[in-house]
Amino acid sequence: MDNRPIGFLDSGVGGLTVVRELMRQLPHEEVVYIGDSARAPYGPRPAQEIKKYTWELVRFLLTKDVKMIVFACNTATAVAWEEVKEKLDIPVLGVILPGSSAAIKSTVSGNIGVIGTPMTIASNIYEKKIKDLSPQMTVNSLACPKFVPIVESNEIQSSVAKKIVYESLAPLAGKVDTLVLGCTHYPLLRNIIQNVMGPHVKLIDSGAECVRDISVLLNYFEINRSRNIDNKKHCFYTTANIASFKEIADSWLPVTVKVEHVRL
Amino acid sequence: MDNRPIGFLDSGVGGLTVVRELMRQLPHEEVVYIGDSARAPYGPRPAQEIKKYTWELVRFLLTKDVKMIVFACNTATAVAWEEVKEKLDIPVLGVILPGSSAAIKSTVSGNIGVIGTPMTIASNIYEKKIKDLSPQMTVNSLACPKFVPIVESNEIQSSVAKKIVYESLAPLAGKVDTLVLGCTHYPLLRNIIQNVMGPHVKLIDSGAECVRDISVLLNYFEINRSRNIDNKKHCFYTTANIASFKEIADSWLPVTVKVEHVRL
Repeated sequence: MDNRPIGFLDSGVGGLTVVRELMRQLPHEEVVYIGDSARAPYGPRPAQEIKKYTWELVRFLLTKDVKMIVFACNTATAVAWEEVKEKLDIPVLGVILPGSSAAIKSTVSGNIGVIGTPMTIASNIYEKKIKDLSPQMTVNSLACPKFVPIVESNEIQSSVAKKIVYESLAPLAGKVDTLVLGCTHYPLLRNIIQNVMGPHVKLIDSGAECVRDISVLLNYFEINRSRNIDNKKHCFYTTANIASFKEIADSWLPVTVKVEHVRL
Repeated sequence: MDNRPIGFLDSGVGGLTVVRELMRQLPHEEVVYIGDSARAPYGPRPAQEIKKYTWELVRFLLTKDVKMIVFACNTATAVAWEEVKEKLDIPVLGVILPGSSAAIKSTVSGNIGVIGTPMTIASNIYEKKIKDLSPQMTVNSLACPKFVPIVESNEIQSSVAKKIVYESLAPLAGKVDTLVLGCTHYPLLRNIIQNVMGPHVKLIDSGAECVRDISVLLNYFEINRSRNIDNKKHCFYTTANIASFKEIADSWLPVTVKVEHVRL
């Protein structure tokens, strides 16, 4: 048993999709979340800069005495997860391995699509992990640089969003039976993406897959939070505007959250 | 990537139910299995003796250069898992936490049954783990000392087996909506147990649940076996009669296995 919170980091609000899944699967766990919306999107930035920012988020979470850190951000996972995991003495989870593993289990044709930010796609990390696990797979990767800005500006219902998603995904149409949403922002666009890809394409939410792994690792390291404790205090921090973070969080999560601004 | 085999230990043939599940979920992984049928059942033995035998099995597996050890035996998990896990520098998995966790997710009424060997039930470990995770659960535990001998003697189809299962489970009838098969031998009696308990009782196979955790930990520790390698050589060892082990293994597993005798 370990009643300390689980720390989540993301470049902005996308990681809230992982927190929502956590609250569904493990409602007794407590959350500390830091979203670096002031510097989002991470995707187009150089790797060294992303690494520096990610370490700042990690150090912030460590000041909150978290028992585990979840990289609820594919870009940060691609660039910094292995290094951070190596250096910390608490478990550190990323979203890429769970997503890769789920995609291999899901595909029938062996043709897997992966969409993500420019950095995630340029790092080629999904293709590498998927082929490490299962060399006969064919991976079609596609950067979708316009998706994160749509989500961070909370325009996911707009007709512009639909048009952008439709145009962006055109190169994958008919080519894959499984599509990895390789960015935690993308589940917020899930309905539009499913419409564009068609009902027979299985969408893999790397964040939701990650939560299944969180559950197993809480068991393995024996650091579950007792379900006996009621006074959960989730804490959400943003480096940018509180109001717009809160608007997205409140519409997305099953609880109303308190958001604080933090300068890193 | 780590192409070494996964080691499985059990007091006898029961752990083959876990291996079968592994071969279904992770068919590219290689297995080394040791079953201590010469000294089965472990259930009625004193804890110190079980601990000593378990360490002998662990040391044997370490000589086979395994990358992970799975306690495919509830009794050994109850008595020695924490100690072994603490001492080794490779991941060591037991079956009790995965089974407990799955039972909590499955139950609707909050009334969970657990059946196991006398030692597993006397250790109270399932009740403890389930209540640690979810204090409001009610756990009905029942020792079924006659089940392992039925399986080890391969009499699972006999009418005697049906009578014993029926009589043994009578105290749980109508009291639980979820029943943990808290011994890896019991899935071999699954059909009879399901008939006796009724179709609405969800049976939790602690071994199958454990394999889901194996998959996550292979990912987390980055020790999956490459799917590119074809020359898998599963190795099965028994401390007792080769022929009777092989008969059960061949009927239970999807592959024909080579079995060697070993003296510990």
